[in-house]
Amino acid sequence: MEKKEMLYEGKAKQVFATDKADEVVVRYKDDATAFNAQKRGSFARKGELNNAISTLIFEYLAKNGIPTHFIEKLGDIEQLVKKVDIIPLEMVVRNYVAGSMAQRLGVEEGLKSPVTIFDLCYKKDELGDPLINDHHAVFLGAASYDELKEMYALTDKINQLLIALFDKMNIILVDFKIELGKTSDGKIVLADEISPDTCRLWDKDTMKKLDKDRFRRDLGEVTEAYEEIYDRLQKAVNS
Amino acid sequence: MEKKEMLYEGKAKQVFATDKADEVVVRYKDDATAFNAQKRGSFARKGELNNAISTLIFEYLAKNGIPTHFIEKLGDIEQLVKKVDIIPLEMVVRNYVAGSMAQRLGVEEGLKSPVTIFDLCYKKDELGDPLINDHHAVFLGAASYDELKEMYALTDKINQLLIALFDKMNIILVDFKIELGKTSDGKIVLADEISPDTCRLWDKDTMKKLDKDRFRRDLGEVTEAYEEIYDRLQKAVNS
Ligand SMILES: Nc1ncnc2c1ncn2[C@@H]1O[C@H](COP(=O)(O)OP(=O)(O)OP(=O)(O)O)[C@@H](O)[C@H]1O
Ligand SMILES: Nc1ncnc2c1ncn2[C@@H]1O[C@H](COP(=O)(O)OP(=O)(O)OP(=O)(O)O)[C@@H](O)[C@H]1O
Ligand SMILES: [Mg+2]
Ligand SMILES: [Mg+2]
Repeated sequence: MEKKEMLYEGKAKQVFATDKADEVVVRYKDDATAFNAQKRGSFARKGELNNAISTLIFEYLAKNGIPTHFIEKLGDIEQLVKKVDIIPLEMVVRNYVAGSMAQRLGVEEGLKSPVTIFDLCYKKDELGDPLINDHHAVFLGAASYDELKEMYALTDKINQLLIALFDKMNIILVDFKIELGKTSDGKIVLADEISPDTCRLWDKDTMKKLDKDRFRRDLGEVTEAYEEIYDRLQKAVNS
Repeated sequence: MEKKEMLYEGKAKQVFATDKADEVVVRYKDDATAFNAQKRGSFARKGELNNAISTLIFEYLAKNGIPTHFIEKLGDIEQLVKKVDIIPLEMVVRNYVAGSMAQRLGVEEGLKSPVTIFDLCYKKDELGDPLINDHHAVFLGAASYDELKEMYALTDKINQLLIALFDKMNIILVDFKIELGKTSDGKIVLADEISPDTCRLWDKDTMKKLDKDRFRRDLGEVTEAYEEIYDRLQKAVNS
């Protein structure tokens, strides 16, 4: 496999072409942003840790029947994945109330939801990735009603698998965001990353936040939190 | 029927108890507010016109099988309705893009949507009546998934009937907001009002706005627009 020109530089990752038209290399950066990139920073080993964490999670999900873009980890900060057309929707799943939902609904952070909450957001930085609903998504041409149904079912399965995985790690999966994409043959697969950048993860005993909220809210020990997740994850997937 | 103490004073209407526990009198005011009451005003004959318009529309919907709170018009600015527990959700239906949807999605006002768009909003002034989805509504205890299904079906039926009615009036029904409530026996019925305060109505030939946007956007001829709607409506329901 030969790495070629950079196709896209995002806030946390770079995407490179390869000699195969339907495969790309994703390189994880140490950069961190929050609040629609109003807050910017970077912290040691973030790229390396997210690459390692996302790799283990995607391998675990694939083993459990989830179709993903993941092919293989290439090195400390790179992985090879199937190139997909990213569906311009962010699927947010909430098992507990936190972040923007707490603000939007005026409810306290930390409440467990009796139902799984799926938030559909329109992936559009200029608009601040607004919350939308299925009708808006169809209106925008982002997905059909049938595709949305498939996406919710897939996301629900991913949530159940992740809850079980983090449970083994003594961690509450508060919420997370995923991106789905279509492969060249039109199949909907899990793409992008799953890491402490894209999840809220709370230690069950101490309720300590082990995710990007440490950066967002200036709580300190950011690298340490990501390392802690990686350590526990390695043990969980090997047990 | 005896009118008793005022139970509630809203931005556009007052609600009074009667000698029957399950009936209330709604009195329409000339006051107008917009943008979550940041803009305030009042214009001549608004209460009278909205009472008359809402009466004709509720009678039309009831005749076509829609369960409503409406009992009878009592006078120029009052009507008698069944007292309901208002479900704290606003159901917004959009046939064309306008207002907050245009802003939220960054799309042009006036586009016809190929699908009927239902927006569920949480009726909570302090939060600015935010857009939510079904999961949030269930989380908040506002409605169950089954009730939401019933509410969407009822709202869809209302939309079809209103499109047909306004079509006869040479008017495009761009969007509208309704409130649903539960009667003492637990039945879900259409409540509140349907008027130029709660709809966007555009003349088919001139695209002239004949609704509260004239007030919101300082377009002038506000009373005249409401009168025009009332005139055309009287002809439509009598034909
Ligand atoms: N398999 C894939 N094929 C093609 N693109 C992908 C794939 N997986 C993820 N992407 C995209 O690669 C980019 C990764 O970069 P990064 O996460 O830094 O983006 P970002 O700054 O979050 O911005 P945005 O997601 O809004 O583009 C994202 O645009 C993501 O949607
Ligand atoms: N049948 C009914 N029984 C009881 N309450 C009703 C009924 N129909 C409407 N209402 C309520 O009566 C009030 C009407 O007043 P108005 O429309 O001025 O309220 P508002 O200022 O819009 O504020 P809000 O709707 O947020 O209370 C609303 O609260 C509405 O929900
Ligand atoms: Mg990203
Ligand atoms: Mg009202």
